[in-house]
Amino acid sequence: MANDESQSTSFSAERYFATQLPPASLEADVAQVREWVQRQQEANRQVVLVTSGGTTVPLELNVVRFLDNFSAGTRGATSAEYFLKAGYAVIFMHRQFSLQPFSRHYSHSTHPFLDFLDVDDVADIQVKAAERPQLIEVLKTYKRVQGAGTLHMLTFVTVNDYLWLLRAISKELYPLGRNAMFYLAAAVSDFFLPRQKMSEHKIQSGKGSLHIEMDQVPKILKPLVTEWTRGGYIVSFKLETEDALLIPKARAALARYGHQVVIGNELHTRKYQVVFVSPATGKPAQTESGGDSDSSKFSESWLRIDLAADPTKEIEEDIVAELVRRHRVWSGSGLSSQPAA
Amino acid sequence: MANDESQSTSFSAERYFATQLPPASLEADVAQVREWVQRQQEANRQVVLVTSGGTTVPLELNVVRFLDNFSAGTRGATSAEYFLKAGYAVIFMHRQFSLQPFSRHYSHSTHPFLDFLDVDDVADIQVKAAERPQLIEVLKTYKRVQGAGTLHMLTFVTVNDYLWLLRAISKELYPLGRNAMFYLAAAVSDFFLPRQKMSEHKIQSGKGSLHIEMDQVPKILKPLVTEWTRGGYIVSFKLETEDALLIPKARAALARYGHQVVIGNELHTRKYQVVFVSPATGKPAQTESGGDSDSSKFSESWLRIDLAADPTKEIEEDIVAELVRRHRVWSGSGLSSQPAA
Repeated sequence: MANDESQSTSFSAERYFATQLPPASLEADVAQVREWVQRQQEANRQVVLVTSGGTTVPLELNVVRFLDNFSAGTRGATSAEYFLKAGYAVIFMHRQFSLQPFSRHYSHSTHPFLDFLDVDDVADIQVKAAERPQLIEVLKTYKRVQGAGTLHMLTFVTVNDYLWLLRAISKELYPLGRNAMFYLAAAVSDFFLPRQKMSEHKIQSGKGSLHIEMDQVPKILKPLVTEWTRGGYIVSFKLETEDALLIPKARAALARYGHQVVIGNELHTRKYQVVFVSPATGKPAQTESGGDSDSSKFSESWLRIDLAADPTKEIEEDIVAELVRRHRVWSGSGLSSQPAA
Repeated sequence: MANDESQSTSFSAERYFATQLPPASLEADVAQVREWVQRQQEANRQVVLVTSGGTTVPLELNVVRFLDNFSAGTRGATSAEYFLKAGYAVIFMHRQFSLQPFSRHYSHSTHPFLDFLDVDDVADIQVKAAERPQLIEVLKTYKRVQGAGTLHMLTFVTVNDYLWLLRAISKELYPLGRNAMFYLAAAVSDFFLPRQKMSEHKIQSGKGSLHIEMDQVPKILKPLVTEWTRGGYIVSFKLETEDALLIPKARAALARYGHQVVIGNELHTRKYQVVFVSPATGKPAQTESGGDSDSSKFSESWLRIDLAADPTKEIEEDIVAELVRRHRVWSGSGLSSQPAA
């Protein structure tokens, strides 16, 4: 397995959308988002788009096998709850079957709800006493959010679904200007198989080893920052397995795309520490040439929690609090005013 | 993407287990299975090993990306329930987070349980009336199975976990002889990346396209049939996206491995039709040369259900009923007698 520089086949976003097909549900999804965004504008709410979970890269048109990115969706689902708590309206754009806000507390594998229900001889169902306090709190919050209509769910499976949805939703958030936040926590594939190169049917085994050659996914943050939004506060994530790469790669992304913050996390420590990397001046660090990572242009701040002291503490609570603070500064600082309701 | 005959790198099962590492939890898992199997023997129960869900092939040792096989685990989870109903003790060896018996009725995506609970002002939790009858039935069955101890759960993630577990569990079922059934519904990768070829850290993008070259997974049915079991009734599955391949590939598998039945299913029709392919004589169809698929040596019988007439009907009910019937004939037909309790 190797990356081969000589055969670089990088798609521009433009070429990508001109050659790959939109998901069948795109139009219907966008129409729902449009209505929902309008209601949030009327209610004068800040809106955050949370993306969550991994994307797949199908190897066949009739898909049996696919490449995937590791992500249960914990970061996104947990963060969505804290954004709701902070008064944001949330579009939760997530990988089908990945964790969701509220129901994440009762994953069928780690905390199966059937285990905390009892049924007696007269067929009466009871919730076990030990489970009641948490369930009541989760349920009440869930019902309140449902009643307020502040959580909108959208699903994707493939990286292609993800790219089309992200572009379309961004455009729907355009009227919100600086009141929109993008919290891009999904684990998005860097590679894809263009439709034109996919095999129609299941790849047959028994003929030797499997060779896969994939193209690069377009760097979607570039058009997101420069074309699809109008001052939206953009948070991207970098997941690495080598600590030493975290800050250089985060800086390079900021220099290249000119957005507001990269949250760096390392695979094995991500539950208790992350680093916020941003342009030092509060201005975009983007340079003409791109890729500039002169350290004086960036600021880093680490966020750590002590799980030994409080095992129930979720780092997403602090991540979201910090972002809400930064977003308040950002959206109050002019350029784009509150959109007309 | 292509299969390259010239570079065939097929591992024998022996070479596989000699060069790849067992999962860390293997010993503990096997010890639990051993105790459980002994209890089932004492209770004189037939035992079925149900495998379910897809296996992953990690591309990195610190895994961020992986190849996966499409499978929610519906076939396996549903079948496990019907085997339990038929009096079998079930080892449910499934992909972590895939569907499980009983809780499958309340997937957090398709039928989220939070939606059928109400909470009132005095913080009392009620199950909505419309949901009560089904929930009561599911709960009662679930509690009965828990009480009887007839369902044992095991999880895997990677194809490596799967192969080590399958071998180890098969050996634990050896004493059951013909009273054991193997219902191999998991979607197992045909390819893997040997540990020795994996990159340690996340593969970096930005350097061009991705090339992956994988080796073939050993054909594990061969040692399962000839070494690891003593007359166990072995059911394998073939999933294809081309109808025309279904029967030839099922016959080829029977000829090659000499087991009892292949259930063929096509990706788009698998919820309402499958085909049972078996040796015509009731004897193994294995040939000296392997790969013999002379049609007179095989019998096929299609199983179809009419979902328009009964949308709640599950084809697994009929699949399991047919297998239980065949297994009764098989285990009553001599060779291996009931093991001593």
